[in-house]
Amino acid sequence: MTVDDETRLARAYLCAVAEPPSVALVELVTRAGPKEAAARVLAGEVSDRVAKETAARRERVRPEEILRATEQAGARLLVPGDDDWPEVPFLAFGLSGQAHLSEPLGLWVRGALPMAPLTERSAAIVGSRSATGYGVHVAGSFGFGLAELGCTVFSGAAFGIDAAAHRGALSAPGTTVAVLACGVDQPYPAAHHQLLDRIADTGLVVSEYPPGTTPARHRFLVRNRIIAGLATGTVVVEAGWRSGARRTASDALLLGRPVMAVPGPVTSALSSGCHRLMREPGTTVVTTAAEVLEEVGRIGEDLAGEHDVVRRPTDGLSPIMLRVHDALPLRGQRDVSELSADSGLPVELVRSALARLEAACMARRSGPGWCLSNNVGRDIAQGLRGGP
Amino acid sequence: MTVDDETRLARAYLCAVAEPPSVALVELVTRAGPKEAAARVLAGEVSDRVAKETAARRERVRPEEILRATEQAGARLLVPGDDDWPEVPFLAFGLSGQAHLSEPLGLWVRGALPMAPLTERSAAIVGSRSATGYGVHVAGSFGFGLAELGCTVFSGAAFGIDAAAHRGALSAPGTTVAVLACGVDQPYPAAHHQLLDRIADTGLVVSEYPPGTTPARHRFLVRNRIIAGLATGTVVVEAGWRSGARRTASDALLLGRPVMAVPGPVTSALSSGCHRLMREPGTTVVTTAAEVLEEVGRIGEDLAGEHDVVRRPTDGLSPIMLRVHDALPLRGQRDVSELSADSGLPVELVRSALARLEAACMARRSGPGWCLSNNVGRDIAQGLRGGP
Repeated sequence: MTVDDETRLARAYLCAVAEPPSVALVELVTRAGPKEAAARVLAGEVSDRVAKETAARRERVRPEEILRATEQAGARLLVPGDDDWPEVPFLAFGLSGQAHLSEPLGLWVRGALPMAPLTERSAAIVGSRSATGYGVHVAGSFGFGLAELGCTVFSGAAFGIDAAAHRGALSAPGTTVAVLACGVDQPYPAAHHQLLDRIADTGLVVSEYPPGTTPARHRFLVRNRIIAGLATGTVVVEAGWRSGARRTASDALLLGRPVMAVPGPVTSALSSGCHRLMREPGTTVVTTAAEVLEEVGRIGEDLAGEHDVVRRPTDGLSPIMLRVHDALPLRGQRDVSELSADSGLPVELVRSALARLEAACMARRSGPGWCLSNNVGRDIAQGLRGGP
Repeated sequence: MTVDDETRLARAYLCAVAEPPSVALVELVTRAGPKEAAARVLAGEVSDRVAKETAARRERVRPEEILRATEQAGARLLVPGDDDWPEVPFLAFGLSGQAHLSEPLGLWVRGALPMAPLTERSAAIVGSRSATGYGVHVAGSFGFGLAELGCTVFSGAAFGIDAAAHRGALSAPGTTVAVLACGVDQPYPAAHHQLLDRIADTGLVVSEYPPGTTPARHRFLVRNRIIAGLATGTVVVEAGWRSGARRTASDALLLGRPVMAVPGPVTSALSSGCHRLMREPGTTVVTTAAEVLEEVGRIGEDLAGEHDVVRRPTDGLSPIMLRVHDALPLRGQRDVSELSADSGLPVELVRSALARLEAACMARRSGPGWCLSNNVGRDIAQGLRGGP
């Protein structure tokens, strides 16, 4: 780490003094540096814009206490300048709603792994808390499949899709990162206390909020910008027509990151948000972990293969051979002239097609004429029974 | 009808003498006219290309018998020049696989309605014969919804998706058209004998093949070009990874027609063809009949509305109001200074937000401070319990 203790202390103060994303304060820090910025905020010697963000808390924040709480939580405060600070773009929306590029002033991290490398080949799996069994299954298998392929799985540790994605990745075993809308010391939701511990054991639990910060609804929306920023791409597995997951997706789109959505039954309200995304420009439909990796992986290395398909005996036939083949009887025989009339092909073309079909064991001589060879006859008859 | 009997007889001969799509023969008919073309084919006085298509049957075809069989089947032979001949582009693929624009030499039609108007605002619903319950449900409800909105439903009368789409349209009641890969006198598949009769009663049963023609696999592929040509757009409801429905869709794409696909569970092999289409350029994801009509209907008239959504009490709040609102306690009270620290907003902004929240009945005074108003408190608490 190349960041000195005083700078980290100043960053702890700055992180806590303004409610993220504090666009004006971040600008001040960029201009004046964190130590100078923290001193000015504490003294109240800042512009009106910065004062608006910092006045409410400037005399209440105790950075030494925050760093003590950080240590007690088994966490660390990662700040720009640290070796494993992720050099990725983050979005922030000002109070009036306009989008800025604005990185967090710091990130609290629980877990031993360095953060930056985890973001390089990674995907966020997000979606509804009230997921269906289908959504949980898909999130789990995507989490597993991506982690198994060495791709970090980001999510928000919520019920439903988030938890299924984390669990899938943990079972691979692979690396997963939970990004919280509260302090990394808050077991939220309470039922995921153990899950968060397991994630921190082999991956990371991350938050823009200082230890002690409780979850609030506006923080979930703000948290989504961290997920969209850290992950190479974002997959929405299940989401209602209006959903926080859609917000993460729109943040990712603004950042030029791949946004993916998983299809589901059109009869399921919890897939309607995914289908809505698919009908908007910029979203890729994904059905497997391999297809996700194709979007977020290294170009040329992570191409999804063709689906496994059953080959049919007639697959390689030319249009002419197929027409003659279709005219052959299952039993009995037809002569070349009848086959010509039935297929609408000249006698010479029928003869050469028959020779090739015979060589491929798909036709055989039968008395004076021809019929289908025994081994394919049954397949074909079954294939034809209801049309192709 | 402006077409004389001799011309229709010549067309009947031409339709039967070559296996569609007979690209070279169609070119000859375009140049020489149908009567002249039929006479030359019968005499064997044609180019090698046309001879290749016509030599096998030129002495066997009896056009008078074909027209008699047409009448017996309660059908008519529609030809270019007839008032209700559909002036739409059709694709044809030569034996070597290249695509041409090439209209059929004629179309057999069972049913009283004129054909051309039915194609104007129409959609083909196609998909797998071995459809799932989900696919049958969706095809039926799309068929019903489109027919109810005055849109003609085209399909192929096969088992599965096709039959469900026709039945949905019939139940609207509305107009549906079955396009067959055999003669219109052939009850194929046999189990759909009655269904085809019902379709012909209120809609049309159509084929490029003369009465008496039996189904063959290559004819199903060729038939798909007629569906793709007649319908304004094509919807694939369920299709395996390789599927005839995909061929209809690719024909429609080549014609510049809208191609739509319905999402389904990624765990269903019968949705894999739809998802494959969605991952290719040019396919629109559709989840309702209204969304299909938006693609195939008249511009500006047939826009699909927003999905019905539940409005939340906090929907209209500005980011500042939402932050103050989130900081309000459910019971007890918090004063302005505490709300300012918790939300990270200056005291003045908190005061003005509280005034607006109070006016909206979303906050109330409580002792010396503020709390959530009773009526929204419960909603909010429930909404927050698991994150937003």
